[in-house]
Amino acid sequence: MTGSNRVKLKPGDTIGILGGGQLGRMLALAAARLGLRCQVFSPDPDSPAFDVVLNATCAEYADVEALELFANDVDVVTYEFENVPSAAAMVLAARRPVLPSRSALETTQDRLTEKDFVTSLGIRTADYADVSSLAALREAAFLIGQPAVLKTRRFGYDGKGQVKIHQGDDLERVWAELGTKSAILEAFVPFEREISVVAARAADGQVECFDVTENEHRDHILKVSRAPAAIPDALAEEARDIASRIATALDYVGVLAVEMFVVSNGRAPGVLVNEIAPRVHNSGHWTLDGASISQFEQHIRAIAGWPLGKPLRHGHVTMTNLIGDEIDSYEQWLTVPGATVHLYGKGAARPGRKMGHVTQVSPLPPKQG
Amino acid sequence: MTGSNRVKLKPGDTIGILGGGQLGRMLALAAARLGLRCQVFSPDPDSPAFDVVLNATCAEYADVEALELFANDVDVVTYEFENVPSAAAMVLAARRPVLPSRSALETTQDRLTEKDFVTSLGIRTADYADVSSLAALREAAFLIGQPAVLKTRRFGYDGKGQVKIHQGDDLERVWAELGTKSAILEAFVPFEREISVVAARAADGQVECFDVTENEHRDHILKVSRAPAAIPDALAEEARDIASRIATALDYVGVLAVEMFVVSNGRAPGVLVNEIAPRVHNSGHWTLDGASISQFEQHIRAIAGWPLGKPLRHGHVTMTNLIGDEIDSYEQWLTVPGATVHLYGKGAARPGRKMGHVTQVSPLPPKQG
Repeated sequence: MTGSNRVKLKPGDTIGILGGGQLGRMLALAAARLGLRCQVFSPDPDSPAFDVVLNATCAEYADVEALELFANDVDVVTYEFENVPSAAAMVLAARRPVLPSRSALETTQDRLTEKDFVTSLGIRTADYADVSSLAALREAAFLIGQPAVLKTRRFGYDGKGQVKIHQGDDLERVWAELGTKSAILEAFVPFEREISVVAARAADGQVECFDVTENEHRDHILKVSRAPAAIPDALAEEARDIASRIATALDYVGVLAVEMFVVSNGRAPGVLVNEIAPRVHNSGHWTLDGASISQFEQHIRAIAGWPLGKPLRHGHVTMTNLIGDEIDSYEQWLTVPGATVHLYGKGAARPGRKMGHVTQVSPLPPKQG
Repeated sequence: MTGSNRVKLKPGDTIGILGGGQLGRMLALAAARLGLRCQVFSPDPDSPAFDVVLNATCAEYADVEALELFANDVDVVTYEFENVPSAAAMVLAARRPVLPSRSALETTQDRLTEKDFVTSLGIRTADYADVSSLAALREAAFLIGQPAVLKTRRFGYDGKGQVKIHQGDDLERVWAELGTKSAILEAFVPFEREISVVAARAADGQVECFDVTENEHRDHILKVSRAPAAIPDALAEEARDIASRIATALDYVGVLAVEMFVVSNGRAPGVLVNEIAPRVHNSGHWTLDGASISQFEQHIRAIAGWPLGKPLRHGHVTMTNLIGDEIDSYEQWLTVPGATVHLYGKGAARPGRKMGHVTQVSPLPPKQG
């Protein structure tokens, strides 16, 4: 198999997964159900995904020899996190198809490139400006106003790598605090709701979106997702359409998530794109139990060159993350009727660490008439 | 942990699974979702369950040293097949809890012991007789009549180790054909339906039965299961009650399946027990997609000392086995709306080999009124 993106796996073929966290683990479990093998590459010897595959590579992402050996062992490469080093992706892509493609990674690894890309599609985002110096920050802060959020262009997640700026803040101190020369200032969005759409796209262009999910964060970490989001149908349609257009414009193969804000400002509510995650996403975990096909299976089908499924939701679904020592509540959750408990097999329950999640599905009320 | 049956696993603990087929594989996948590790022991280097665990032991069941090392690595031992050699179970049970217990294995490994046990509970079976010689076969054939089925007492499955006897058959030839001195003659049951009940029992005595399943065999191999079985409620209640009583009488911990015949003989229909499988069972595969908890998770919860779930069925469920080269139809199945495809990752699609299965769920019709 060459580096072409035209992949067609057979049962028994092997998928290489970069990253060994819970997303890689759940991807590997979904692949196993389809008769596909996985090999996981991760620098962390305690990677939870290692537990569910026969072959694992424990090496740094900068280890070219390890990457080459890994590529030789697999038929296609995918990843569970967006911060795959570009050099690693290049080494792998020279030997095996990497899906989603490197260009999708490059677009979404940089907040500025990503926002430029989204706005180029005529899709709205918060106001933003490139900030590469204190002078640029002062100018951007003047144009965009406060409150605003200063973010590193790269490598931020779960609220890391960002500082909120209020009226009167000392911008020199804020700039020093962020500690980078590559930043973006975004207007703070007084949103009504945070929502996301998880979409899958196949190499042949087929796109399947899951229902819009409403997300509730706590300390910048996703705590609860609810599907469907309690928003008007037209807005949900707009959100799904945005995700489809983004996936198509990226010529994307696999699952991505688009995080959005619902804003109204006293007018009819609209949607702003906040962020694209070029991977399966925490806000799609409800699909494991609440839909006829999960985001993980959709991703595996897409990168295998297999047809996507048409997702049907089983009811009203709530997904609750177990964060840090909340994992200790697993025994109570096991006794809740209809609750499905997922534990990630991680060792230490450090504060803020995602240790597992619970799904609860309320059957759809019977249709009247 | 000692050899006691009082097990209480913590997330991150390890379950040892004897047997590396699709049942072991699906048990390991269910355990992974609960944050538990598995180690698989199997003599077959191509075991499909090896693909989904980090640690595997490839050794013969008679290899005492390998069994001891395996026991040292795990916190509890279970199995995916009833023909676990008694000596292996004994070696393991001296070091770690083995669940279900050796006594449940011993009762169900021998068709005669099993039928004696079932009838001792006041539960009906087909007429049967112990046959250890040609003379005994002649006498049993006279008493039981024809047609009848001569079966080896041990190690039969999927129609192997059995011969049907018709009026006028040469019993000497039949006896020679079976080639054992340890057999049982069973009256052939002109059944209306074949059904099964998959039941889970926890160490504290809690029993949870899945809904009664109706099974259709082809060439002695399960082809289609449907849940619920199209039988009157009272009969379904009787079938579930039988499974519960058997599990309780065996002081069973884990999942078992009881295969039964529905017979009427012109009278009100009744149920005869055909066979007990002390393990997860092909006729329970529909629970993976068609119920709020699967038979695999119930088994893992039971042997982990965790509370069982209360299974709720999602609708009318059909499970179709993909046998031999029927696996080649997986691509068509992937396109069937609502169908969930499971492939076992086996190599050669030999005739009669179970390669995968497909589940289809029709949502429950809305309740009227």
